[in-house]
This record gives sequence, structure tokens and C-alpha cells, in this order.
Amino acid sequence: MKITPGKILAQINSPEDLRNRDRSELIQICDELRQYIIDDVSVFGGHFGASLGVVELSVALHYVFNTPTDNLVWDVGHQAYGHKILTGRRDVFHTNRLYGGISGFPKRKESKYDAFGVGHSSTSISAALGMSVASQYKGEKNRQHVAVIGDGSMTAGMAFEAMNHAGDIPNNMIIILNDNCMAIDPNVGALKEYLTDITTSHTYNRVKDEVWNLLGKMSKFGKSAQDIVSKIENGLKATLLNQSNLFESLNLRYFGPIDGHDVEYMVTVLNDLKDIPGPKILHCITTKGKGYALAEKDQTLWHAPGKFDKITGEIKKKVFTTPQPPKYQDVFGNTIVELAEKNSKIMGVTPAMPSGSSLNIMMKTMPDRAFDVGIAEQHAVTFSAGMATQGLTVFCNIYSSFMQRAYDQVVHDVAIQELPVIFCLDRAGFAGADGPTHHGAYDLAYMRCIPNMIVFSPMNEKELRDIMFTVSQDDFKDLKQCISIRYPRGEGVMPEWRTPFEKMEIGKGRKIKDGENVAILTLGHIGNYAVETCKILEKEGINPAHYDMRFVKPLDEVMLHEIFQNYDKVITVEDGCIQGGFGSAVAEFMLDHNYSAQIKRLGIPDRIVEHGEQIELHRECGFDPEGIAEAVRAILGTKKIQQKTEDVKLVLN
Amino acid sequence: MKITPGKILAQINSPEDLRNRDRSELIQICDELRQYIIDDVSVFGGHFGASLGVVELSVALHYVFNTPTDNLVWDVGHQAYGHKILTGRRDVFHTNRLYGGISGFPKRKESKYDAFGVGHSSTSISAALGMSVASQYKGEKNRQHVAVIGDGSMTAGMAFEAMNHAGDIPNNMIIILNDNCMAIDPNVGALKEYLTDITTSHTYNRVKDEVWNLLGKMSKFGKSAQDIVSKIENGLKATLLNQSNLFESLNLRYFGPIDGHDVEYMVTVLNDLKDIPGPKILHCITTKGKGYALAEKDQTLWHAPGKFDKITGEIKKKVFTTPQPPKYQDVFGNTIVELAEKNSKIMGVTPAMPSGSSLNIMMKTMPDRAFDVGIAEQHAVTFSAGMATQGLTVFCNIYSSFMQRAYDQVVHDVAIQELPVIFCLDRAGFAGADGPTHHGAYDLAYMRCIPNMIVFSPMNEKELRDIMFTVSQDDFKDLKQCISIRYPRGEGVMPEWRTPFEKMEIGKGRKIKDGENVAILTLGHIGNYAVETCKILEKEGINPAHYDMRFVKPLDEVMLHEIFQNYDKVITVEDGCIQGGFGSAVAEFMLDHNYSAQIKRLGIPDRIVEHGEQIELHRECGFDPEGIAEAVRAILGTKKIQQKTEDVKLVLN
Repeated sequence: MKITPGKILAQINSPEDLRNRDRSELIQICDELRQYIIDDVSVFGGHFGASLGVVELSVALHYVFNTPTDNLVWDVGHQAYGHKILTGRRDVFHTNRLYGGISGFPKRKESKYDAFGVGHSSTSISAALGMSVASQYKGEKNRQHVAVIGDGSMTAGMAFEAMNHAGDIPNNMIIILNDNCMAIDPNVGALKEYLTDITTSHTYNRVKDEVWNLLGKMSKFGKSAQDIVSKIENGLKATLLNQSNLFESLNLRYFGPIDGHDVEYMVTVLNDLKDIPGPKILHCITTKGKGYALAEKDQTLWHAPGKFDKITGEIKKKVFTTPQPPKYQDVFGNTIVELAEKNSKIMGVTPAMPSGSSLNIMMKTMPDRAFDVGIAEQHAVTFSAGMATQGLTVFCNIYSSFMQRAYDQVVHDVAIQELPVIFCLDRAGFAGADGPTHHGAYDLAYMRCIPNMIVFSPMNEKELRDIMFTVSQDDFKDLKQCISIRYPRGEGVMPEWRTPFEKMEIGKGRKIKDGENVAILTLGHIGNYAVETCKILEKEGINPAHYDMRFVKPLDEVMLHEIFQNYDKVITVEDGCIQGGFGSAVAEFMLDHNYSAQIKRLGIPDRIVEHGEQIELHRECGFDPEGIAEAVRAILGTKKIQQKTEDVKLVLN
Repeated sequence: MKITPGKILAQINSPEDLRNRDRSELIQICDELRQYIIDDVSVFGGHFGASLGVVELSVALHYVFNTPTDNLVWDVGHQAYGHKILTGRRDVFHTNRLYGGISGFPKRKESKYDAFGVGHSSTSISAALGMSVASQYKGEKNRQHVAVIGDGSMTAGMAFEAMNHAGDIPNNMIIILNDNCMAIDPNVGALKEYLTDITTSHTYNRVKDEVWNLLGKMSKFGKSAQDIVSKIENGLKATLLNQSNLFESLNLRYFGPIDGHDVEYMVTVLNDLKDIPGPKILHCITTKGKGYALAEKDQTLWHAPGKFDKITGEIKKKVFTTPQPPKYQDVFGNTIVELAEKNSKIMGVTPAMPSGSSLNIMMKTMPDRAFDVGIAEQHAVTFSAGMATQGLTVFCNIYSSFMQRAYDQVVHDVAIQELPVIFCLDRAGFAGADGPTHHGAYDLAYMRCIPNMIVFSPMNEKELRDIMFTVSQDDFKDLKQCISIRYPRGEGVMPEWRTPFEKMEIGKGRKIKDGENVAILTLGHIGNYAVETCKILEKEGINPAHYDMRFVKPLDEVMLHEIFQNYDKVITVEDGCIQGGFGSAVAEFMLDHNYSAQIKRLGIPDRIVEHGEQIELHRECGFDPEGIAEAVRAILGTKKIQQKTEDVKLVLN
């Protein structure tokens, strides 16, 4: 199904087309763009509320700035659907986030209008500052560099680092603060309160127009005129605002707040700002989900609702007649509450992912024991470490790819100090439709090399629950180690998942089945593929052993001795990069103990893998059930028996 | 030589002893403590200026707060010498930073007074907040939690993340902002200017005493009295300060600035602050190097001057009669300038390490092309990426252990986008006396797993110069890859190091010598040890081959095929963690190509290695020249010939 654009939007195939339209048409263009996004996302799914909130901003920016000569950097980027549709990608927009289709985020390879690839938050000011400084150095006086950043992204330290630098060196960068009081969940932190305070200062709002008008005009009369205006401006602001301004403290000229849904006014303001030298910030107030009532009302639900009926607002869910396995995140979210009810030492921490991690369950039931610290992974880890020094048992839940933001804190504040912080890495392995910025590809390699770090991955719901139970017991603290528990996005395999807790032995794997000639060693949920693989191969008369190794570190050395004494062909399977990961650990063990089996390591190859459904990516990388089977056949030197494999059901999402 | 303490200091063996002294003695105690630090560091070396700057603060904090029940978290920690001397470590302080001695930084294992281990910057607020929240949760109403953070550390985003959170949840944390306008080099960024502005607001300073006095008194009368005072306070501040306050924006009560060298006044103020609820920040102005005139004058030189004559101020340098090899950092610092003079695209970036990286040479000669961005590793990387998108050739120089702070940015903003940023990782391998927080142990593992990342390490000055030349050429950009160039702290091996530039082939190693039975594969400067090893073994009739592999990625596959076809015993040597590093890469290659040699991997083991001279640590971990020789003997099954090895000269620092 192809989405039909409104009649003006249909004629806009590039920002140049947009800039050739009369200013009086902008409101209609915004309406058509908003409708197009609603039509498309309701049918194809994707991020929703964020893009609706910046429809007017997207139109105004491309109308005022000379993109792509002027650089436009979107922070995070899930709000860039309007931008994509306006920049020549309307006709391929129905492939958004699909395997082989366009990315859900801005991406340099995809379009010259995507000045900087994004996905994680809070990078835009640094990137745009680099561009602006480069422009200055090259003497490009008329090029503009614009960063669009949300108030949620503003809480990450990286944005502060960039503003601190921007306020101190010559550049003309424009920062657009897109303030909708939301990250994916409601934004948290003192900054949020502060932005609200500014926004409600009516005295200041009333006179600011005149000041800006003057500023824009005076800037054409050279430096001394600008200086005078600048003084007037500061005096007025100090008097009228009668409160502090955080951004001015950092030497960024602050303008706003303005209504981010008034496209014509925004065009005026942005045109004025272009003429004002130096780094500056424009504070726009927007509503996430703007123009779709339900999305405005429940902004977290409608951040990325999946497909829905655009008339009734009914979100389309798969209907199952039998009980389905839960999402791993919900196993985490419910289990931590179950454990915390009996163990008063347990605390939970998430950096801005309450609903994504399902820690929101604990935040609701035990608000003094579960913390959303904002988009602030670094702080999340060291804050957890601080609590751990006081004898508390802290579960710090961070997506695998976001944990890259806190790598130093894991090493420096947790592992070196032997603090028993429990890291839960959600979205480990391929993230799916979010693509390469969100794939949790590297954590096995980057965690395994850290001393005092246990690395574990559950193959199913029970293993996740049991490890959470095990490490929340006081005797875990005696080990003086921390642990990384990694699990994938999506569902497990056990509809009846509320199993009684059993203590696990740290560093102990599990034999799934004995076999002949070849052993498959798997880590985590992906082990369920190997179960399917064994079924495929059984029909071909091939009988591999299968071990769920559970721990990358410490390895189950007893089990590995058994394996290498009995099998001279070994296949390792992991949903992680094959350099330095689980397979590499097994290889190191083998060499350290002078075994000489043939080892084939399956996992994420040494290249950037794009977006798609998880199973599609696993297949592409050769570790879906059939891919593993093919590796077994190859190592045994046998051929596939064609007709037997077609009816195999895939167990992962 | 043992340092003799002054007569009061001699009686202070714990903070309890200090707290039992009369307040009138504090000035003398400060004098004696300052003198003790000068006496000790002049003889034994170590960090100097930072600890002199906080003598009064250290005394005041331990005098007012009930340490160790009250938690005192020092940021970075190289300023904590006074703290260590006051907390029972005076008699072992002469072992500071020596192998087997006490750490140069606070360390939980070392003392109950070290509430949190540090080394890297900007962690203190997060940690103290965690402690404070834990205390509140546990109902410990009278425990205090104090973070002491410098203005340099305040530029790192992590500190901002923590303040944003602190201002939003119930806690009683006290943040001491130790403002001396310095990191190791002068502090940079808009924040610095801002702090200076506050400090010079005399109107505000005059009345603040009375307000605080009132605040302290009223807090005893319950919440409603506090609310009234709070309103008065805010009104007064807004009027008197007549400028913005960044910290108040984040809902932290701001007090100050005060003179950080007036110990009696600080005791008064700190006592007042204890009674004021909620998170608060006290701004203290101090002078780095206070009390030692030369150190006050040249604060960067006297940050860690080495041993010196305390009377004349002459810094003791080794005297050599022959030309010595340069430090690797100086090869970098001079070579980038040499290249940039001919190539106008070259830019340099350092996060607050101009003198440590030697980028200060370029900052002096080409100020518009070399940037100190502050303690802001995350921003440094993405700022570099932004410049790279504009066609510039950016060298981003970050210590190996500090690069852990920017891991996500390396993956997300550089590697995924195929931007040709050149990372130079100084202090790779053991950092020496700075110890585990500063060891660059993990970069080979954490960089090798990233797609589009070349990983290189030079064995000598020429290889460093040649790789810098090679990757600064425009054709490097065609590879669409980034590169990590890692080299150690200290000197190389070539007194005549200004060699003409030669282009290197990416992924090409170098055979140092042929051999028999066993091949030693080394990476980087540590390869010079293996040269010594071969000399040791030659006398024993053992003749190993030696390859300087240069690249961990891409590996020199031609060379590796040659090696595995000719040798069935291989030893890999790296100054990095052995899990997932260089040796692991060689092992992966071997298995992927179905060779079955015996491989022994030498490197940093899977445990935290403490501080000491680099060679002491290499010896401890078995990869000094003799350690490598022993590994060769072991793999060959021969025994050491004892008398031959004693006169071997060590080539590393």
C-alpha cells in the first residue's frame, strides 16, 4: 500500500521545491506532512510522536536554511520522518525500517541532507560545532550549522560538554532546543523544571520580540552596534527574566521560548537568528504527538506504537489463541519487583528507559527504590556504584549499545573497585529495525576483557530469573565481582515463565544434549536456534551435541574439558561480534589447554550490519537455525538434504 | 629518607586526633601539613600543586565532618595527599606511587577514609549522590556525603548528569567546588569564564555571610521557617548577584565564593552547611600550588614536577651524556606540526591534555587548528567527527584509559559513519605509577571489535611518524575507515628520531628476524623487549623468529600464513589485556585458517594490576625480556641457563 500525499506535498521532492513555495502555503504543507506521517506510520509502523511534534520545525528549517549546503543535524533522529519526506525520500518512505529499506534515523550514506548519522542521543551539538568550526577555518562565511536537540537529550553530559566548548570558541552554530518535556518516557531531572520555569515567565515573553527584532537589524551595522545591542539585550533579560539562565551562563545567546507549532513565526525567528553572530540557542516548545489526539495524551505509548487504525486509534496487536512467552524486559521488570519485595537491599536504576527496560513496574510500586536518572548512562553506573558502597544490591539496566556510553564508569568505578553492581544489558545482539546504532553487537567483547566482570546470558526466562535471584543474594557480594547479564530485545520461549527461583552456580554451563562428532556451544537466547538446528539435522542423520554455556566469564572449564576431550569439531554461536567475543573466549581456552579442535565461530561479522527483523539479520549473518545447520554440515563435510528443512518454525522474533 | 612532621602533625594519626585539637591550632596544622607535602614530594616525587591547593580544605573537611562515617569523595584524587596524611597514612606516605606502596589516589582497599576510589575525573558527584540516596533510604539521618570536585572536572558531562539528577531527588549531598581555574593545564570552556564572573561579584559577596548565618539558624525551626528563609535567600541572590546562576538553575543551592585558604572561615561555613537540607554546592576559590611560590607561578609544570630541591626549586632531571630517545608524546606533538605545516587539512584535538599529549606544541604554533576542548572525551570524539565530515583530517589524541569515556562516540559517530578520524591513544599499556585507573589495558580488545577500525601500534618513533604521515594523506580517506594508533607513556628507542616520512602499507607487519622452532609476534613498543629476549636466548643457543606485527587489524595475513606454515610454536606479546586482544586476534586467524600451532599469549592478565614502574609491572606479568625468554624456553621445553641473563639492559622506562 502506497501512501498518497496531499496536493502540495506531492510536488515537493526536495527542500528546493519547498523553498520555492509561498510562505502563505506553509501551514497547509505542515498539515499535509503531518497527515502523511500519520497515514504512513499507521500502516507501516515506526516512531510516531516525535516526528509529529516537529512537523512545523522541519518545514521551517528547510524553508529558511539552504540545505544541504547548510548542515542540519538531528539529535537521536527518530523525529526526522518529516525531514526525510521533505528531502526526496517520500516515495521510498514505506520501506522505512524494513530490511533493505531506508533507515529510521538520519544516515549519511542515505542522503546528502543527512548531515550526520544519529540514533543515540545528545551528539548533535558536538557534531554541528565541529562542522561550524571547520567552516570558519575554511572561510565559508555564509554556511549555517544547526543542531536540533530535545530536552531529554539535553540531560546527557555530552550535550553539556559541547555547550561548554561552543561558548568558548568562535562559531556561528544554532542550537534548536526542541522542548516537549519528554524523552521516550517523561523527561526527568532538575533541567526539566528549569525549562518549565523559563517557559512560564510571561513578563519576559512579552517584550522579547522587540529585542530580537532590534538584534537582527543591528547586526548588519557591524561590531560596535552589535555590542550595544548585546548589552541592552543582557540587561533586559536579566531584569525581565528575573531569574537565572543556564545557557547564558555558558555564553550561548538564549532566545525563546517560542511556539514550535507556529510555522510562520518560526520562519521569521530563524531568519533573524541567521544574522546574529556567535553560538545561540532557540528554545521551541512543542508537543510530542501534536495533531493526533491520542498521541498527545499518552506520549510514551505513542512514541512507537506499531501499526494502528488511524481513525479509531486502535493499536494492532497480534492475537494469539495460546499463551505466549513474555518479553525478556518484562521478565526483568517483574522479577526485580518479586525479588525486591523480599529483599530490602535491592534497588533499580535506568537511564531514561523505564518503559523500555520495564523498570517502570518497580518505579510504580517502589518509587523510593527505582530511579530513572535521565539520559545519563555515565551517571547511572557511578550512581549505582555509590549505592553499592553502602551495601545495597543495585540492578543497573542499560541497553547494550547505550552501555557503550558508560564503559569507563564500568571499568573505573565498578570493576576496579570490586563493587557487586548487577548490570542488565537489554537489547543485546541485533536490535532489529533500529539498526546499526542500536545493535548490541560489542558488549561480549568489551565486557569480557574487564577484570572482576562476570559475563552471563540467559537462554530463556528461567535462566534470567535464576541469575537475578542468585546475584541478589548476599553471598554474591563475597565474590567481589560485578556481572553483565545480557539478553535480547523481544520474547523468550516460556509462556509459563514464573518459575520458582533456583540458585545458579556462577561459571556453570548446561548440557542440552549429547551428540556425535561435533558440539555446538551457544550463548544465551540464540541457543534456541541451535535446538531447532538439531531438529533439522536429526532428519539428515546428523547428531550434534549442544551446550548452553551461559557464562562467557568465568567459562565452565570442567564442561569445556569434557567438550574438547570428546569432540574435535566445535561450533560456537553468539549474537555478538565474533572478534573477541564468546567464540574467541572458547578458542583462548582451547589454546591455553593445548587442545587442537577445529573451531568455527558464528556471530556478527566484522562489518556494520544494517537494520531489519532480528531473524533476517541472523539469517544474513549465517546464524539462524539453517545457518547453524549449514555450519555443522560444512565442518563435517556433508551436504544439505534439501527437502527436510522447510517446515522448521523460527523461534525468535 | 623519612620525612619529619611538624610537632602537632606528628600527633595526628587519624581525623579523630585532628578533631580533638583546638580550632585555634588549625592554621598551624595547615602549615605543617603543607610543609610535609613539600618535604615529601621534593624527595619522592608525585603530584604536587593540587594537594598544596587543598591543604586548608582537607583540614577543614576532616575537622567538621565525622569521617569515615561521613563520606568524603575526592574527585580525580591527585589532590588527596593531605587527606591521606591526615588519615593514618603519614608513616607510609614515602611509599606513595611506588611498586608495592600506597596509591597516589584514594582507594577503598587502602583505607576506610577513602569512600570511593578515583583517578579519572568527574565521578565524585554521582558517587556521593548514590551514597546520599542510600543513606536516606536506610534512614541514616545524620550521615553527611561530601563530593570535592575541581572546576576542571566540572566540565565533564558526567558531572552535569549527576547535578541534574541531584537537583531532582531528595538528598543532602554537599558538593565542594574547588575552583583553581586549572585542570592539569589551564581550564577551558565557557564554564570557566562563568565561575570567574561569579567570583568577582563583590556586591553579592558582602552580604552573603549574613544570609547564610540566618539560614543555618532557621533550619533548626522546621520546614516552614526554612521555606521563608529560602525565599529570602533566593530573592537576595537574584537581586544582589544580578546575574544568572547555573547551579541554582539545576536546583542546587549555591553558596560562595569563599576563600579556600581561610581554614577557620571554612570550618564555620561547613558547619553551617551541615544544617541546611537538600543538595548544595559550596564554591571555594583556591590556588593550585598554594604556599610554594614557583608552583603557584607555573601551575602546569608543578602539577607533577618529579623530585626537586625544595630550597632552590630546581627540578631534578636525569643527566645524560649521549642523546636520548624522545617521549612518544613528543614524537606525536612535533610530527603533527611538521605534517600540518604542509597539509592545511590537518587539525588536532585533545580533551584537557595539551601538555600530556604534547599537542600544546601545535596549540602554540597553530592556535586555530588545535583544540583543547576541556575534560570532555565524548565531545572531543564527536567534535572530531563533525570536522571530519567537512573533509578535514583530524588527529584526536586521548589517553587509552580516558578513551573508555568516549567508547560509544567512537562506535556510533565515527566507525559506523566510516569517518576517517585518526585516534592517537597515548599511555597505552601500563601507565606506571598512576596505577590501575590509568593503565591503558583494554583498548586493543575494545577497539578491535569495532568494524571499520584499524588498530595499529608503533614499535618505535619511525613507525609512529610513518603511520601519522600515511593516514594524513588524502588516499587514507578512500578506505572509509578510522584508526587507533596506540603507544605507551615514556620514551621510544631512537635518539635520532626525525626520520624522513615513508608511507606504510595498512595491514603490513615487519619481520625483525628469522628463527627456528618458535616465532615471537609482538605488537608495538613492547617489541623492543623481544629484541632483548632474542639476545638473551642467543647465548643459550635458542633462535626465535621475531615479527613486529604493527597491526592488530587488519592483520597481516600473508605474514601470518608464512608464520603458521613455518612455526608450530608461537608466542604473542602485547602490553594489553590478553582476553580479546592482539594474541586473541592471532589465535582467531589460526583457527579460521585451520592451522594448529601451539600459541602462548603474553600480556596483561585478567586481574587488576596495581601501580609501579612500567618495567616492574611487565616483569610481574611475565612479559619483560626475561619473562618472554622464559615463555620461549617453556614452549620449547628447555631450561634457563642461569648466569647469562643478568647483564641485560632494559630498554623501557
